Amino acid sequence: MTTIDLNSDLGESYGNWIMGNDEAVLDLVSSANIACGFHAGDATVLLKTVRAAHARGVRIGAHIGYNDIAGFGRRNIDYAHDDLVAETIYQIGAIKAAATASGATVDYVKPHGALYNTIAVNEAQAAAVIEGILLVDPSLTLMALAGSQIVAQARVAGLQVEQETFADRAYTADGQLVSRKLPGAVHHDPQTAATQALAFATGRPITAITGESVLVDADSICVHGDNPQALALVQKIVSSLSAHDVQVSYAH
Amino acid sequence: MTTIDLNSDLGESYGNWIMGNDEAVLDLVSSANIACGFHAGDATVLLKTVRAAHARGVRIGAHIGYNDIAGFGRRNIDYAHDDLVAETIYQIGAIKAAATASGATVDYVKPHGALYNTIAVNEAQAAAVIEGILLVDPSLTLMALAGSQIVAQARVAGLQVEQETFADRAYTADGQLVSRKLPGAVHHDPQTAATQALAFATGRPITAITGESVLVDADSICVHGDNPQALALVQKIVSSLSAHDVQVSYAH
Amino acid sequence: MTTIDLNSDLGESYGNWIMGNDEAVLDLVSSANIACGFHAGDATVLLKTVRAAHARGVRIGAHIGYNDIAGFGRRNIDYAHDDLVAETIYQIGAIKAAATASGATVDYVKPHGALYNTIAVNEAQAAAVIEGILLVDPSLTLMALAGSQIVAQARVAGLQVEQETFADRAYTADGQLVSRKLPGAVHHDPQTAATQALAFATGRPITAITGESVLVDADSICVHGDNPQALALVQKIVSSLSAHDVQVSYAH
Amino acid sequence: MTTIDLNSDLGESYGNWIMGNDEAVLDLVSSANIACGFHAGDATVLLKTVRAAHARGVRIGAHIGYNDIAGFGRRNIDYAHDDLVAETIYQIGAIKAAATASGATVDYVKPHGALYNTIAVNEAQAAAVIEGILLVDPSLTLMALAGSQIVAQARVAGLQVEQETFADRAYTADGQLVSRKLPGAVHHDPQTAATQALAFATGRPITAITGESVLVDADSICVHGDNPQALALVQKIVSSLSAHDVQVSYAH
Repeated sequence: MTTIDLNSDLGESYGNWIMGNDEAVLDLVSSANIACGFHAGDATVLLKTVRAAHARGVRIGAHIGYNDIAGFGRRNIDYAHDDLVAETIYQIGAIKAAATASGATVDYVKPHGALYNTIAVNEAQAAAVIEGILLVDPSLTLMALAGSQIVAQARVAGLQVEQETFADRAYTADGQLVSRKLPGAVHHDPQTAATQALAFATGRPITAITGESVLVDADSICVHGDNPQALALVQKIVSSLSAHDVQVSYAH
Repeated sequence: MTTIDLNSDLGESYGNWIMGNDEAVLDLVSSANIACGFHAGDATVLLKTVRAAHARGVRIGAHIGYNDIAGFGRRNIDYAHDDLVAETIYQIGAIKAAATASGATVDYVKPHGALYNTIAVNEAQAAAVIEGILLVDPSLTLMALAGSQIVAQARVAGLQVEQETFADRAYTADGQLVSRKLPGAVHHDPQTAATQALAFATGRPITAITGESVLVDADSICVHGDNPQALALVQKIVSSLSAHDVQVSYAH
Repeated sequence: MTTIDLNSDLGESYGNWIMGNDEAVLDLVSSANIACGFHAGDATVLLKTVRAAHARGVRIGAHIGYNDIAGFGRRNIDYAHDDLVAETIYQIGAIKAAATASGATVDYVKPHGALYNTIAVNEAQAAAVIEGILLVDPSLTLMALAGSQIVAQARVAGLQVEQETFADRAYTADGQLVSRKLPGAVHHDPQTAATQALAFATGRPITAITGESVLVDADSICVHGDNPQALALVQKIVSSLSAHDVQVSYAH
Repeated sequence: MTTIDLNSDLGESYGNWIMGNDEAVLDLVSSANIACGFHAGDATVLLKTVRAAHARGVRIGAHIGYNDIAGFGRRNIDYAHDDLVAETIYQIGAIKAAATASGATVDYVKPHGALYNTIAVNEAQAAAVIEGILLVDPSLTLMALAGSQIVAQARVAGLQVEQETFADRAYTADGQLVSRKLPGAVHHDPQTAATQALAFATGRPITAITGESVLVDADSICVHGDNPQALALVQKIVSSLSAHDVQVSYAH
C-alpha cells in the first residue's frame, strides 16, 4: 500500500497563550513538528505535546527555531555560527529529554519559520544546523524544503534528509515554491490542494503555476490546523488520500 | 588516599555579559555546576563550558534554576508542579545534549539559588525536581544541601544524593547553615574556611557557631571563584587539603 | 443619573498569540486596564490597544505586572524593593508614551495578577508600587482591591485610590473576597452576578457568602471578556445596570 | 570657547551582570546614551543610570535597540514597520519616566548597534524610528551616523539631528566610516584618535585612510569606557581637547 507522511507544526502554545488545535491535528497527521521553546512552546507545553503525540503513535520531530519568542521565529536574524550550532544542540536536547521522559524518541529535525527558509538558501546557516544535529545525534533525519540546496548539503554531510512539500502552495516549473509575495502562491481551493497532495503522495507530477507538469520529490507533506478552515482542509486531504488507497504514515 | 569533591557554579555568563573566572576555577575544582540557560548561561556558553570542563576531566553537573534571567534565579517564584517538572527535564536535556556533543556525560544535578534553597525545605517543589530527574535519567545524582529534608526524600524516591557543604559558612550546633541574615554567618577568615573544609574532607566534626563540635556529612564542598579574593580562598583550601594528603576529586 | 465604572483587563495578546476579545469588550466597559509588556502585551499590542480604547473614549489604565511572561504575571515573585519601584516607573512610562503617541492620556494604574494580590496584603511591595507611581506621576489614580490595606496606605502616601469589586465573586461578611480555593467563591449564576453588580453600582449592600448584608465600597467593577460566556455576562450586567438607570462611565 | 559633545553608551548592565565603568565614564563625557531595556539595561539599571547622569549634569539620551537581550542588539533582525515604531515609542517612554522620576529630562535618541547601523542605510527602518520619535516627542534630537542618509531623512521629517563621529575609527575620502572588516578601520594609536577628535571638535578636516583631507560634520564624538584601555583613551582625548581650549559639553 502507498503511504505518505503528513506533518504539522504543533506545541506552539506558550504560557497562558493557546495556539492551534493540537489534539485534533494529532488525530490526522503522522509526524509532529514540536516547538522546542525558542520561538514557541515552553517546557510544559513541549512535554505535554510530546506525550500527546507519542500516545497516538505520531512521529516526533524537533521543530527548532530562532531564539525569538516576540517574533515567533519568523524574523530573519543574523546568527553567529557558534550560536546557531549551540542553539540547535540545545533545542534538540530539550525535546529529546521530553521524549525520554515520555518513553518516546525524537526521529527528525524540522527547522521553523525564518530558520527553515534561510537554511534552504543560506549555506552558512545550513552548515551550522547540520553541524549541530550531527554533534548531538547523527541518526536524526533532517526534514527540509524539497528541492532546496540544503538537501544535498546535508546528505553530503552524512544526514538522512526527507524532502517536504506543501499541499496548498503553488510551485514553479522547476519545482520551487512560488513566493508568497506573488499572486497565486496559495491554493485557496481545497480540491486543488487535495489533488496536489495526492500527486505528491503517489509520485506523480503536479501542475506548476505556469501550467507545466513538474515532479517534486515529496517524502512528507506539511499541513496546518490552526483554524477550522485549515483543519477542514487537512480532513479533505486525508479523505482524498484514503479514497485513493494512500495511507498517512511516516517512513520507517 | 582521602579524596573530597570541590564543586563550583560555572557557565554563568550570558550573551555579551561575562561572569566569573571559569578557566581559573576549572583548574581547581573536581565538579562543575554548569548553568543551563534558565537563570544564566545561554546555549553557546553552556556548550563552551561543558567542553572546557570535559577537557580537564572535571565532572559535569546540571545547574538547573528557575526561569528568571532578570533575577539570576535568586528570587523565589511560586511554581506549578507540572511547570517545575517540565523545566527540570528541559534543562537537563539541554546540558545532556551539550555533553553528548562534546563526548562528555552529565553526572549530577545541582539546583541553583532560590530553587536550591526552596527544595531544601519545601517538599512539594522538591518532589517536582525529583520527579523530573527520575523521568529523564534516574542514574543522575542529586547534589543537595547537607542535612536538609530533600536528602532523605530523594533517596526514598530512588535517587543517589550527594550532600553539599560550604567551607566559608558557619553552621549551627545541629548541622544546619546559619542564616546569612545573622551575624557570623560567613567565615571571612580564610584560615577558618580552610580548616572547616579540611574537617569536611576528613570526616571530622567542625566547630558550630555556638562552639559545639558538630559532624556534617560532606560529599562535596562548594567554592566560588567570582572575584580574585574568592579565587584566592579556593587556592588556599586546595593547598591546605593537599598539605594534609587530601586529594580534590569527585567520587566514582 | 447614577454611574458606575466597569473595567476589564485588555491588551493581553503577545507577539503571534492572541488573547481575549478586546474590540468587543471595549464596546462595553468604561475603563481599560492595558498590559504594559511585563506579563503580557508587547509594544505593538500596547500601542494598538491604547489607540482602540482612546477611539471609544474608554479610560486608559496601566496594567502593570511582575516581569514574567512565562507565568503571565500570576506567580508570586520575591522582589527587591528597588526593582519593583523601577519596574513600576518603567511600565507606566511605556504606556504613557503609547498614550502620548495616540493623543490620549493614562489616568490610573491597576496592578495585575500576583502583584495585585500581593500588594493588597504585603505592605512592603505595596510601598514600592506606591513609590513608583508617585515618582513618575502623582496625579495617577491607583485602582486597588476594595477593603484591602493598600487603600489606606496609598491614600496616606498621597495617591487617589479607586476601590475595585468583582461582580462574580462572593464576599465574606466583613467585605473581603472569598478565596478561590473555597467552595462558592465564584458566582456561576449570571443573575447573581448582575444583582451584585447593581448593588455595587447603587451603593447598596450585597449578600455575603454567609448570608449577612455587607456594604462594599465600589468605585469600579471588574469584568472579563475572554470567552463568549464571560462576554455574555458583561452584556447581562450592562443590561441590568441600564434597566435600573445606571450608566457605565468612569468618574471624572 | 569651543565646545564639543562627547557621548558614551551607558547603563548596559543587566540583572546580576555588570558591564562597563559607568561612574568613571560619566565623569568624562557630556552625553549618556542610556540603554532602555531591549538590548541591555533592565528597569533598575536604567533608573540608576539616569540618576547618575543627572547628578553630574550629563545629558540623557535614549539608547534604543532591537528587542534582543541574547544578542545585545548587535544582530540584524527583520522588523515589521509597526513593531519598530511601537518599540521606539515604548523604549523612549520607559526612559522618559525614569527621567521624570529623577527630576531629569531626555534630550535625544541614539539607536544602538544593529539598529543604528541599519537605519543609517535602510530608509524603511529609518522611517519607522523617525515616526516613533515624532509620535512620542518631536522635540527629541536624533543622534545619527555623520554623513549617513538618515540625517537628511530625519531633518526632512522635522527632527533635529546631531551627527556623530568616532575618534578611533578611520574614515574614507568621502567621509564614511571604513568598514571594520577592512584593515586599518580602527585607530589603535591613542595619539591618532586624539588628533582626530580634536579635528572633529574644531571643525577641521581629518585625514582619510587613503591620505586625503576630508571634512566630517561632528556634533558629537562617541567614546567607550568598557575597559581600562578604553577609559585611558577617553582621558587622553579629553586632555588633548582641554589643552587646545576645547571644552567637553553638549549643545544647548
